[in-house]
Amino acid sequence: MEALRRMILEKGKGIGNDIVKVDMFLNHRIDTALLFEMGQAWADEFREEKPELVLTVEASGIAMAVAAAHALGDIPVVFAKKSATVVQNDDMVQAPVYSFTHKIQNMIRIEKQYLPEGTRVLIIDDFLADGQAVRGLMNLCWQQQAVIVGVGIAIEKGFQPGGKALRESGVHLKSLAVVDGIQDGNIVLRPEDD
Amino acid sequence: MEALRRMILEKGKGIGNDIVKVDMFLNHRIDTALLFEMGQAWADEFREEKPELVLTVEASGIAMAVAAAHALGDIPVVFAKKSATVVQNDDMVQAPVYSFTHKIQNMIRIEKQYLPEGTRVLIIDDFLADGQAVRGLMNLCWQQQAVIVGVGIAIEKGFQPGGKALRESGVHLKSLAVVDGIQDGNIVLRPEDD
Repeated sequence: MEALRRMILEKGKGIGNDIVKVDMFLNHRIDTALLFEMGQAWADEFREEKPELVLTVEASGIAMAVAAAHALGDIPVVFAKKSATVVQNDDMVQAPVYSFTHKIQNMIRIEKQYLPEGTRVLIIDDFLADGQAVRGLMNLCWQQQAVIVGVGIAIEKGFQPGGKALRESGVHLKSLAVVDGIQDGNIVLRPEDD
Repeated sequence: MEALRRMILEKGKGIGNDIVKVDMFLNHRIDTALLFEMGQAWADEFREEKPELVLTVEASGIAMAVAAAHALGDIPVVFAKKSATVVQNDDMVQAPVYSFTHKIQNMIRIEKQYLPEGTRVLIIDDFLADGQAVRGLMNLCWQQQAVIVGVGIAIEKGFQPGGKALRESGVHLKSLAVVDGIQDGNIVLRPEDD
């Protein structure tokens, strides 16, 4: 997606081998105009899949999920909550998410009643690297017997295995920008395929 | 604001003396149509104050801040991050927020560069009870010498002191709904003043 790609190249910072810092427009300060363009791009990609709900995980996924849900005709958003431990509560469904960055396992959870069986779900998140967060969100959907119609990502780290694994498993995945690597502090983007 | 008031009465739950549970439409599952109506209501209230940035705190404030920023012409959003401890970093500005609910003090922080001196800031948050979170956000603005043009709240607990204290200190505060109390599990709303 051209507007996001341009912003990444203009304002993003590559740190070390694998950190893509975009918190000046995406996940600390939010460029609201860009955000709603991104929501429109996901809506255009997934509209035919007839999603009924957008699922994400707090905190930085929320803004993007809201923008996508708005562009899809104001369908509801549910955001999973994070916690360090398993919460003992029969009203909740939970899934583990391992963070390679922080070397810890967190749990994500939602209230079961907000993800009814058969709901057509679009998963949205800001980053896709190892794919742990997306797998955790998919796990919540499987447990609830919801239908995953697609996964929309802002920035995929193409040099990490999450995106490839999802595509090979048949998931309809749309990453608005794919970073192929970081060279001397410069972010290298994969050419657009469409 | 009529749509929010109606939703609170229809779907909200009062628990005990002071818990207003609205996570079925506001802060776990989000009713996206209502969210954008709320954004419009805040924009109508504060447009003449010419806000240049919407400031909130993760996680549940983010959706509301995005909706308000969109209605104000896609001005940027900055969301403060929470942590249990002080982060040692000269690029950050931090403020304490005491939680009466959890009986702990957290820190909230933002990167200084995203809140430049003189910026006209609209603060948005989901709840106002004791006012600690809003005071923390105002504290960040004071430290950065930003201009607080107003505070927009979804649900104010009118039986707790935060709203009264802010109004008495001259802050332009707009709460879209004010809960006066909980009686036998029923949420009692204050009549609208306009």
